[in-house]
Amino acid sequence: MSYPSSRLTDLLQIDHPIIQAPMAGASTPAMAAASAKAGIMGSLGCALQTNAVMTADIAALRAVINQGVNLNFFVHLPPKMDMNKIAAAQARLGSWYNRVGAGEVPAFTDASVYFDQTRCDVVLQAAPSVVSFHFGLPDAGLVTQLKDAGITILSTATSVAEAVYLQDNGADAVIAQGAEAGGHNGWFLPRNGADAAGLFALLPRIVDAVDVPVIAAGGIGDGRGIAAALALGADGVQIGTAFLATEESAVPQVHKDAVIAASGDDTMFSKAFSGRMARTIANDYARDMADVTDWPDFPLMNTATAPLRKASAQAGKPDTVALWSGQAVGHVREYSTVAEVVQRLIAEAQACLSTK
Amino acid sequence: MSYPSSRLTDLLQIDHPIIQAPMAGASTPAMAAASAKAGIMGSLGCALQTNAVMTADIAALRAVINQGVNLNFFVHLPPKMDMNKIAAAQARLGSWYNRVGAGEVPAFTDASVYFDQTRCDVVLQAAPSVVSFHFGLPDAGLVTQLKDAGITILSTATSVAEAVYLQDNGADAVIAQGAEAGGHNGWFLPRNGADAAGLFALLPRIVDAVDVPVIAAGGIGDGRGIAAALALGADGVQIGTAFLATEESAVPQVHKDAVIAASGDDTMFSKAFSGRMARTIANDYARDMADVTDWPDFPLMNTATAPLRKASAQAGKPDTVALWSGQAVGHVREYSTVAEVVQRLIAEAQACLSTK
Repeated sequence: MSYPSSRLTDLLQIDHPIIQAPMAGASTPAMAAASAKAGIMGSLGCALQTNAVMTADIAALRAVINQGVNLNFFVHLPPKMDMNKIAAAQARLGSWYNRVGAGEVPAFTDASVYFDQTRCDVVLQAAPSVVSFHFGLPDAGLVTQLKDAGITILSTATSVAEAVYLQDNGADAVIAQGAEAGGHNGWFLPRNGADAAGLFALLPRIVDAVDVPVIAAGGIGDGRGIAAALALGADGVQIGTAFLATEESAVPQVHKDAVIAASGDDTMFSKAFSGRMARTIANDYARDMADVTDWPDFPLMNTATAPLRKASAQAGKPDTVALWSGQAVGHVREYSTVAEVVQRLIAEAQACLSTK
Repeated sequence: MSYPSSRLTDLLQIDHPIIQAPMAGASTPAMAAASAKAGIMGSLGCALQTNAVMTADIAALRAVINQGVNLNFFVHLPPKMDMNKIAAAQARLGSWYNRVGAGEVPAFTDASVYFDQTRCDVVLQAAPSVVSFHFGLPDAGLVTQLKDAGITILSTATSVAEAVYLQDNGADAVIAQGAEAGGHNGWFLPRNGADAAGLFALLPRIVDAVDVPVIAAGGIGDGRGIAAALALGADGVQIGTAFLATEESAVPQVHKDAVIAASGDDTMFSKAFSGRMARTIANDYARDMADVTDWPDFPLMNTATAPLRKASAQAGKPDTVALWSGQAVGHVREYSTVAEVVQRLIAEAQACLSTK
C-alpha cells in the first residue's frame, strides 16, 4: 500500500511508517523482532538497562532478525539530592510500604546509566540503525559520533521549541509526543506553567516548524488514528500502548490485565512513581499522591518505589504498580501477539486511507 | 464540496459541518450572524446572561439573518457554601486585588441563571433551531419540552460514559471535547482521578459508543484538524479559539492580543478563575494558583474574581484576566473577521480532503 509520505519509511528502511515504541520495562528482543518481521521499526527501551544487559538483548535480537533496530535512552540530568524533599517523600512512602508489606523504604539513590562515552562506545559496537532519545539529546560530541557511524538519530518533542531544538542539534526526525502518550512525557525545555499539549494541537505546529520527518505519538491505537496523524501532516506514527498486552511484552501480568480492562478514560499523569510526569492507568497510589508537587528529582523515586511496585505486582494487585499506559488503551481489548497487533493496525490504516 | 458524512449538516441544516463554539463572554450576535451567513452553525453563549439580555441578543441576531441559531447554557448544580474554602480563597485573592488595585474582594455569591422552567419558556419563545448544554443536561421534563418544540439538543462529553449518558437522555448529537479545548471543560460524571483525554484518544471511542452524530472539539484550528477529526470518525467539528481574535468577538483587547501572541504551547487548565477546570493562556495569576486544589464550588469564584479580571483587562494587562483559549491558539496569527476565518477553514479542509 502507499502512504502520503515515504520520508520516514525511506529514512528508517521500513515497509510501514510505524515505530514500535521502545517502552523501557515493556519492550523485549522478542517484541522488537516481531515488529521488524512485520515491517515496522522494532525498538528496545534500554534506558534502565546496564550495558551488559543491553548488549545481551541486542545479541538475542540479532540472532533472530537481520533488520535494523532502534535503541532508546533517557538523557536526563543527574538529580539534586534535596534532603527535605527526600525526607518528605520517604514519610509518604512509609505508609504505602506498610500497607503492601514491602519492607522498609529503600535509600533514594540514582541508579541511572547515563549516556556517556562508555555507553556510546557500547552502542557504536552494537551498530543499531537508529538511536532515539527521551528528555533531549546527549552531548553534541556523542551525537556526532553516532551520526558519523551512519546511525539515524530520533528524539521526542512536546512543544515546537523542543522540536526546533532537536532539529538544530542533530535529530534526523522528531517524535511529536502528545499529552495522550503513556509512560514518561518527554518534556525537557521550560514550560512556564503550561500543561502538555494534545496531539491534535501539537502535531501540525511541529510539522510546520521543522524540515525533518515528524513522527506522531500519543493516543494512536487504531487505523483511524494513523490516518488522522497523516492528515495532520505526520510522516509516520509511534505506537506503544497497543503492544503492552502482547505475549512479547515484559510488563507484569497485573499490568497487562489493567490494560485490557482500561477504557481510556481512566489514565492520569503522575509524578509519584519516578519523580517525573508519566501517564499511568489511575490506581490507589497515584490517586493518593495526585496533589503532591514537591517530589525529589527524577529518577530518585524510581529506586525508592521499586520494591513497592514489585511487591504489588507479585501479589497480583495493581494498587501501587506503575501501570504506564497511554489514553489509546481503550482500543486494547484482548491479549494478542505483536504480529497480530501490527497486522490489525496496517489493515485498518489501509482501509481508512483508501476510502478517503 | 462533499464531506465523508452529511449527518451533522442534515441535522443542523448547515452547508459545512462546522459549529462556531458558543463561548460565553466571547460570542456576539454579530459573530453568530457572520457564522450563519458563511454556512456554518452560529452560536450564542447564553450561560452568563440574564433572560432579558439573552432575548435582546436573539432579537439582534434575528434582525440580520434568517438561519437557525444555537443557544448554549451551563447546567451545573448550585454550589455548596463551604465557608472554610471561601475564607481560604478570599485570603488568596486579597493580595491579587491589592496588586492590581481592584478594590476589596467581593462576596462569594452565585450569579447563575439556572436552566429552569422560566428560562426554558424564554428559550421556547425564542425558538432557536438548536440548544446546546455544558456540564450535562437539564431536568428531563425540560429536555422533552425543547424536543417537542422541534429543537435539536446537543451536549458535551469528555468521556465515553458521558457520551452514552447524553445519548440516553435525549441529546441528538454529542460534542466530544478533548482536553485541548479552551474555556470550561464540560466534565460532569465522576472521573476517579483520571485526567481529561486528548481528542485523538477520546473521539474514536465516542464514535464507536454512540449512534448519534459526533462533533469533535478541542485543538482544531485549521483544515488539517478538520480532516483529521473526520478521519477519526467525527461527523463535524466545533471550533472556538479561531474566532477569539475577530472583529466580532466580545473578549477584551488584551485577550485578543494574548491570543495573537500565543504559540499553543503556553496554555494551562486552571480552576482559579471560576472554581472549575478551564483552559486559559498561562498568566501570572493562573501560574501562582496552579497548585491550589480546594477552591469553592463553581461558580462562586466567577463573581469573586470578576472585578479582578475586569480591572486587569481595563488596565491593558493580561496578568489576571481569564484568557480562555484552546491549544489550537497557535494557528491564530492575525486579527480578522469571522467570515475570513470560516472561509480559510473551509478552503483548507477542502484542500486536505480532496488530496486524500
